[in-house]
Amino acid sequence: MGKLWHKKTELNGEIEKFTVGDDYILDQQIVSADCTASIAHAKMLSRIGILKDKEFKALKRELVNILKDNEDGRFGITVQDEDSHTAIENRLTEVLGEEGKKIHTGRSRNDQVIAALRLFARDFLIYFEKRCMSLAETLINFAEKNKGVPMPGRTHMQLAMPSSVGLWAGSFVEEIIDDTQLIVQAYDLNNMSPLGSAASYGVPLALDREMVSDLLGFKRVQNNVLYVNNSRGKIESVILNAAEQVMLTLSKMAQDMILFSMPEFGYFTIPEEICTGSSIMPQKRNPGMLELIRAKTATVSSLNLQVKSILRGLPSGYNRDFQETKRAFIEGIRTATMSVKIMELTINRLKVNKKALLAGFKPEIFATDYAIQLVKDGTPFREAYREVGLNLDKLEKMDPYKAITEKNYSGAPGNLRLDLSSERLLRMKKEIDTEDLRIKNRIKSLTGLNISFFKTMG
Amino acid sequence: MGKLWHKKTELNGEIEKFTVGDDYILDQQIVSADCTASIAHAKMLSRIGILKDKEFKALKRELVNILKDNEDGRFGITVQDEDSHTAIENRLTEVLGEEGKKIHTGRSRNDQVIAALRLFARDFLIYFEKRCMSLAETLINFAEKNKGVPMPGRTHMQLAMPSSVGLWAGSFVEEIIDDTQLIVQAYDLNNMSPLGSAASYGVPLALDREMVSDLLGFKRVQNNVLYVNNSRGKIESVILNAAEQVMLTLSKMAQDMILFSMPEFGYFTIPEEICTGSSIMPQKRNPGMLELIRAKTATVSSLNLQVKSILRGLPSGYNRDFQETKRAFIEGIRTATMSVKIMELTINRLKVNKKALLAGFKPEIFATDYAIQLVKDGTPFREAYREVGLNLDKLEKMDPYKAITEKNYSGAPGNLRLDLSSERLLRMKKEIDTEDLRIKNRIKSLTGLNISFFKTMG
Amino acid sequence: MGKLWHKKTELNGEIEKFTVGDDYILDQQIVSADCTASIAHAKMLSRIGILKDKEFKALKRELVNILKDNEDGRFGITVQDEDSHTAIENRLTEVLGEEGKKIHTGRSRNDQVIAALRLFARDFLIYFEKRCMSLAETLINFAEKNKGVPMPGRTHMQLAMPSSVGLWAGSFVEEIIDDTQLIVQAYDLNNMSPLGSAASYGVPLALDREMVSDLLGFKRVQNNVLYVNNSRGKIESVILNAAEQVMLTLSKMAQDMILFSMPEFGYFTIPEEICTGSSIMPQKRNPGMLELIRAKTATVSSLNLQVKSILRGLPSGYNRDFQETKRAFIEGIRTATMSVKIMELTINRLKVNKKALLAGFKPEIFATDYAIQLVKDGTPFREAYREVGLNLDKLEKMDPYKAITEKNYSGAPGNLRLDLSSERLLRMKKEIDTEDLRIKNRIKSLTGLNISFFKTMG
Amino acid sequence: MGKLWHKKTELNGEIEKFTVGDDYILDQQIVSADCTASIAHAKMLSRIGILKDKEFKALKRELVNILKDNEDGRFGITVQDEDSHTAIENRLTEVLGEEGKKIHTGRSRNDQVIAALRLFARDFLIYFEKRCMSLAETLINFAEKNKGVPMPGRTHMQLAMPSSVGLWAGSFVEEIIDDTQLIVQAYDLNNMSPLGSAASYGVPLALDREMVSDLLGFKRVQNNVLYVNNSRGKIESVILNAAEQVMLTLSKMAQDMILFSMPEFGYFTIPEEICTGSSIMPQKRNPGMLELIRAKTATVSSLNLQVKSILRGLPSGYNRDFQETKRAFIEGIRTATMSVKIMELTINRLKVNKKALLAGFKPEIFATDYAIQLVKDGTPFREAYREVGLNLDKLEKMDPYKAITEKNYSGAPGNLRLDLSSERLLRMKKEIDTEDLRIKNRIKSLTGLNISFFKTMG
Repeated sequence: MGKLWHKKTELNGEIEKFTVGDDYILDQQIVSADCTASIAHAKMLSRIGILKDKEFKALKRELVNILKDNEDGRFGITVQDEDSHTAIENRLTEVLGEEGKKIHTGRSRNDQVIAALRLFARDFLIYFEKRCMSLAETLINFAEKNKGVPMPGRTHMQLAMPSSVGLWAGSFVEEIIDDTQLIVQAYDLNNMSPLGSAASYGVPLALDREMVSDLLGFKRVQNNVLYVNNSRGKIESVILNAAEQVMLTLSKMAQDMILFSMPEFGYFTIPEEICTGSSIMPQKRNPGMLELIRAKTATVSSLNLQVKSILRGLPSGYNRDFQETKRAFIEGIRTATMSVKIMELTINRLKVNKKALLAGFKPEIFATDYAIQLVKDGTPFREAYREVGLNLDKLEKMDPYKAITEKNYSGAPGNLRLDLSSERLLRMKKEIDTEDLRIKNRIKSLTGLNISFFKTMG
Repeated sequence: MGKLWHKKTELNGEIEKFTVGDDYILDQQIVSADCTASIAHAKMLSRIGILKDKEFKALKRELVNILKDNEDGRFGITVQDEDSHTAIENRLTEVLGEEGKKIHTGRSRNDQVIAALRLFARDFLIYFEKRCMSLAETLINFAEKNKGVPMPGRTHMQLAMPSSVGLWAGSFVEEIIDDTQLIVQAYDLNNMSPLGSAASYGVPLALDREMVSDLLGFKRVQNNVLYVNNSRGKIESVILNAAEQVMLTLSKMAQDMILFSMPEFGYFTIPEEICTGSSIMPQKRNPGMLELIRAKTATVSSLNLQVKSILRGLPSGYNRDFQETKRAFIEGIRTATMSVKIMELTINRLKVNKKALLAGFKPEIFATDYAIQLVKDGTPFREAYREVGLNLDKLEKMDPYKAITEKNYSGAPGNLRLDLSSERLLRMKKEIDTEDLRIKNRIKSLTGLNISFFKTMG
Repeated sequence: MGKLWHKKTELNGEIEKFTVGDDYILDQQIVSADCTASIAHAKMLSRIGILKDKEFKALKRELVNILKDNEDGRFGITVQDEDSHTAIENRLTEVLGEEGKKIHTGRSRNDQVIAALRLFARDFLIYFEKRCMSLAETLINFAEKNKGVPMPGRTHMQLAMPSSVGLWAGSFVEEIIDDTQLIVQAYDLNNMSPLGSAASYGVPLALDREMVSDLLGFKRVQNNVLYVNNSRGKIESVILNAAEQVMLTLSKMAQDMILFSMPEFGYFTIPEEICTGSSIMPQKRNPGMLELIRAKTATVSSLNLQVKSILRGLPSGYNRDFQETKRAFIEGIRTATMSVKIMELTINRLKVNKKALLAGFKPEIFATDYAIQLVKDGTPFREAYREVGLNLDKLEKMDPYKAITEKNYSGAPGNLRLDLSSERLLRMKKEIDTEDLRIKNRIKSLTGLNISFFKTMG
Repeated sequence: MGKLWHKKTELNGEIEKFTVGDDYILDQQIVSADCTASIAHAKMLSRIGILKDKEFKALKRELVNILKDNEDGRFGITVQDEDSHTAIENRLTEVLGEEGKKIHTGRSRNDQVIAALRLFARDFLIYFEKRCMSLAETLINFAEKNKGVPMPGRTHMQLAMPSSVGLWAGSFVEEIIDDTQLIVQAYDLNNMSPLGSAASYGVPLALDREMVSDLLGFKRVQNNVLYVNNSRGKIESVILNAAEQVMLTLSKMAQDMILFSMPEFGYFTIPEEICTGSSIMPQKRNPGMLELIRAKTATVSSLNLQVKSILRGLPSGYNRDFQETKRAFIEGIRTATMSVKIMELTINRLKVNKKALLAGFKPEIFATDYAIQLVKDGTPFREAYREVGLNLDKLEKMDPYKAITEKNYSGAPGNLRLDLSSERLLRMKKEIDTEDLRIKNRIKSLTGLNISFFKTMG
């Protein structure tokens, strides 16, 4: 069957291919969310008397059928369908006839796609939060295990002051938790129901927007109907902002591990089963996945920029430009999620070489500790600094272990306070699990199915 | 006097110029914050016995002097000083001698600059929140006043469905409030004390980080000392993310107003006193400030990207690259703030031309309303749609006023629910005022002065 | 069969999936280029005595078989293959045994992928140049046809001075030709042979790099073997820079046409068969493809940025990060090419509405012409300007046709000089056709086949 | 005096500050170019009879006075002036009265600012080309001196194959020359005269555009008057594209030098007089300028993106948004130029530590050389590869010197062919010097002064 807006004139073939692009492929990922939102919409239409109960039941039955087919990989969208919304309406009309033609009452593809994307994003965000927290836990264990292992601390990539593997890993624990907080905030912004806004200007029907919102487990209705459309892409970019922060954290981890697994350092060994090789050099064990995480950080940034650039300068109301944000959004969040997973796998297998780490301590790394020793003995700091600075050649190596443990206030190498992070994680986890359960139950009540709208891709 | 790190060798002149860049000029904006953080640091040093009470008092007295000089525009930083931190330490040493040389005990310029930037950003963020809320209020008044004024609603920039000036303005009310929520979240992330982290690896002294944090009104200590440095630029980018969202909102407003003040629409008149002219065309009244807001949205995006690009791929610990994020950050937030202010001024003076708006309603804009009329009479929507679509030439104009008022569920043109936004604003305002008072009081207690670390520039 | 670098340890499955990504799918597009470069490499190896003549012939025969299979869509790459290079070597070894294992002598996948990408890009660039020139020709015809049709000229989107549809279209003629010049320059930079550089450091064999370069029709050998690898991504970004400039031109055209086909202007009509519709609003005829071109301009910019961001900060030599530039490059150039094609199709069907254009002329648009009339009568310009500016209400409409024709120096509305562009195009076309023929002949001599390494996708 | 477009209504103060921004400061850099273009314009006006010879002479005399004042730093632009064009016209009117009011006949600030920017950019581009060529020469000398010094070659930052310091430096020689070629191409695009286009639509006067173009030394007139304005920002971005490529080259050099001057490598020593220190760590010698070059690469990319983002989506004709591209352009090119200069200074002082370089050679780095030895003895490459790969522990160190010299085909470590680059540089230099002389002579003929419109800033 044809496009929803088809009347008489045939669309030029090249224009069709260009305007549809790969939207019909991308939309495969939101079919289930789209069907679920349609059930809620239909239920509300029956409540306000637009659909008869019998009609609603028929629509729901077939929508659940599509849902099941889609979950089993048996519901396809074609170029001619153009998008998920059309494919679903076509199927409903095909199977149900007249009743199918009623499903689009009181809505537009504009609010329909936003609804599907929000449900999709909602499940993604919960999954993403969980993966980040899992990485944080892995890092806590790693930090705990290596809290006493000395590691040369660097600034400007040069030797700076004594540090520890625990401090290094602990820094990422806190960073990733702060990043996760941003994901939670993006979740809250995303959790608004767009339905009822139609093409941005409402419809002359007594729609019950609260009811639809509740059925779908949204926290609230996004009120102004024009704002609903104007927020397309913006909420996606807030989500990508959070993903980008996560990637920035991973990128630093990757860069550190690439550096410190070079033979000249040897602090870390990345085991062979997660390394890639070379086609010409038989000896190579390359940290391919870490280099790719570093590169993919640029990718996620660029995709986020793409979304924001597309929005910039658009006037109010729906503009077709929005379609071009969909792929960027989906690709961006998938890239970030996979990267988090691969990083956790890497940390789990990373080997720490204490000997190489200790060998990295040269006398100069203790210069500040010496200067502060002079301060304790009464020399003003700036003088102590100059005195040590002019006598660097006389510095001797200190005990790296002692250099760590004697810095023992909160957050310093001798006192990591990983417990603070563990507690924070526990609190976040509890909240997220509760919310996850709440929305899954709503969707179960509505569709009779246990489904997540976000699927990892293997 | 020279650089803090100067020992023997003279720095090459060109390298000095290149590495200092305009940092010494930018730092002028954080001198007061830097002095204030130094007072807190010194007070803590005296509490833990590193400074004698007398020494602390001398340092505090002179730091307050610098503060006052700086507030009066009488404290300058030179290229030779390199940065604010050096200029302050040089002055302290000049005036106090030995005591001045003690101020840098237990800290590094790394945590010092982060502390100053956080205090500066904190006051900026409160100011920015207030300006955004003020814009929201202005828009509420404008929407309230024009809620009954019909306006052609558009999608794809083409005529779509009946809308109202109230709905248009109301959409920005809700968008800017959601944006402000992002600023509040950035505020929370920023409100952590970095002090005690020194050069990223702590110092062998019993620093009381909690005390310094409390004195400066921070909500908590940023725990892991390496994370403190690794978050340089990241927190700035979270703040710029929020600023960028605000700009995206303003850009859409600007684009709409530029468009709808073209003579072909004439919906809005931008009064002459805020328009700019042409050097060759005597008749021109150009919306220069709106075009600049549209352009500056790209500027803020690019500055944010700059910060994030600089971070990407850096290894752990301080890297000089961070310096290059400072200007981007400061320029970005200043640009956003000014733009919000100019937008409020513009809305306040914008004239709405009801006649031109009504003239914009062509029969086709009522097509959907006609189709839904058929639905109410029993035709399935998709059929009603086709029927109207094939008979567009027979459509007649409806009453635009009625077309608006009959869409009267929450958020639709006939029922804007501006009250929801007013209430939300009130709650946010109360919280922000309380927080503002709290931190101002802390700074007053510490320095004896009523100061804001963020100054608007005229 | 397995990976080229496989020795003993099995690669972790998740790492494999992550590191291969969709590279194996993308590589499908460079198989033919890869085979062709391999034939040239093998021929050179036989010339310098590394391969026996018989071995070379066997390798060539099978490489041509793969080439043919690939052209017929019968050569697939699997995830296990990892990439095109491995798939080809595996097939050679499978079919030829020992001889297949010799193909990789004296090269690395590093120079191999660069060679394939350069050949692919070379054919793309010629195709792209031709499409841009075709668009320029279409615009010349359009401009010629409409050179006498008045059109209100705008600055700041406000009425400025009299213009013509011919001037409007003519501006894009010259812009797209200048853009094409950038493509030609990118072509020259790309046309260097990377082979012989191996993994960046050469090999201890007497490779004849000139010979390989000649066989493949490259203009010269890219000399320094490390530079070859360091230019990966850089040359791609120079190509994307050119594509981005083309998109910026198209974006302005799109924005103008979207604007001027709004009913309030009606200057242009975009015929129904290339417009898209709405699912809810029966009357809509939306310029979907123009909005998408506008959006895709942001996409191409972001992809270009992605490539450059990935490069920034990488040390010398191959880094796996490069892999992540491949998709961005291919997607970027494909998007640009399709957009040019769709724009040409649109211009070809665009209807110009003279009546609406004339109606757009309001008296004020002639203000400058009046002022210059005063200048001709002896008033200094600035005074003439003020006089007209203070008496705008007394301005009368002039004859738009006369206002155009009397501006008749070169480049002005009355004297478009489209002949200059036609001549320039002719010269460029001749050069490009010659070069195209030259390289196609080389490839024909080498492989016996008439093939282009860049395929449009339908 | 006031703005050029001032008639009656006073511009709101805040709007004035916002719209002028720092444009009046930036414009200080183009005053001389602006005056020079004005002389050419006036001369042409006198030729076509708009100005009397006496009037032209008066205008020229005073424009030369302004030029001289500006070169001596005695010509200031105020906020009230708004920009360079107004400041100049105000001065002319002040000094000359009636004659001053005639200068703006037949032009607009639109073509005036483009003319000034093109002259400014032209001198910049020649300066930039010279600095890049100077860096290339410095690198050639460095490569020549160190062509026999072995250096471990890396891929994935891991040990790969034997290389040399000469090969490393030589790769940048060729890269920077290819970059310079892009600058030359940008120069050609920029070297078109915009004058006569006025506000984008020409004027009803018989302007002689060729004459103005010749007087100013432009290569040709940019024909279509609307294209002139539509190319604002685009040509700037083509220039920034070239600058960005240069920065990408410098960034890789910086990253390599930062890495290889770490104590764990010690290949290079960056002498103390160009290093920066730490405020807390007495021992630090930080490669501050290299880190800043790395960071500034992101800055230049972002500024380029800013320009392109601003352009994207603008309709035809002048839009005020263009103003926001000016700072980005000027900042971008200045940053690139300074970075090139600092890099040359660094290379000139870099110390190469042969001992540390030799110590970097571990047996595994010779694995490929061993495998190819087996190939020479008759083993197929893939088998040789596996055999060596499975017996890595048995590898012995080879002679690094021999490993280099035996790779002796063109471009390989044993045969750098620096002569090719020297010759290419010589050719480019000759052309650039000729062009530089040509345009300097034109400007001298026109103004009587020897001036460059681009000034380095110390």
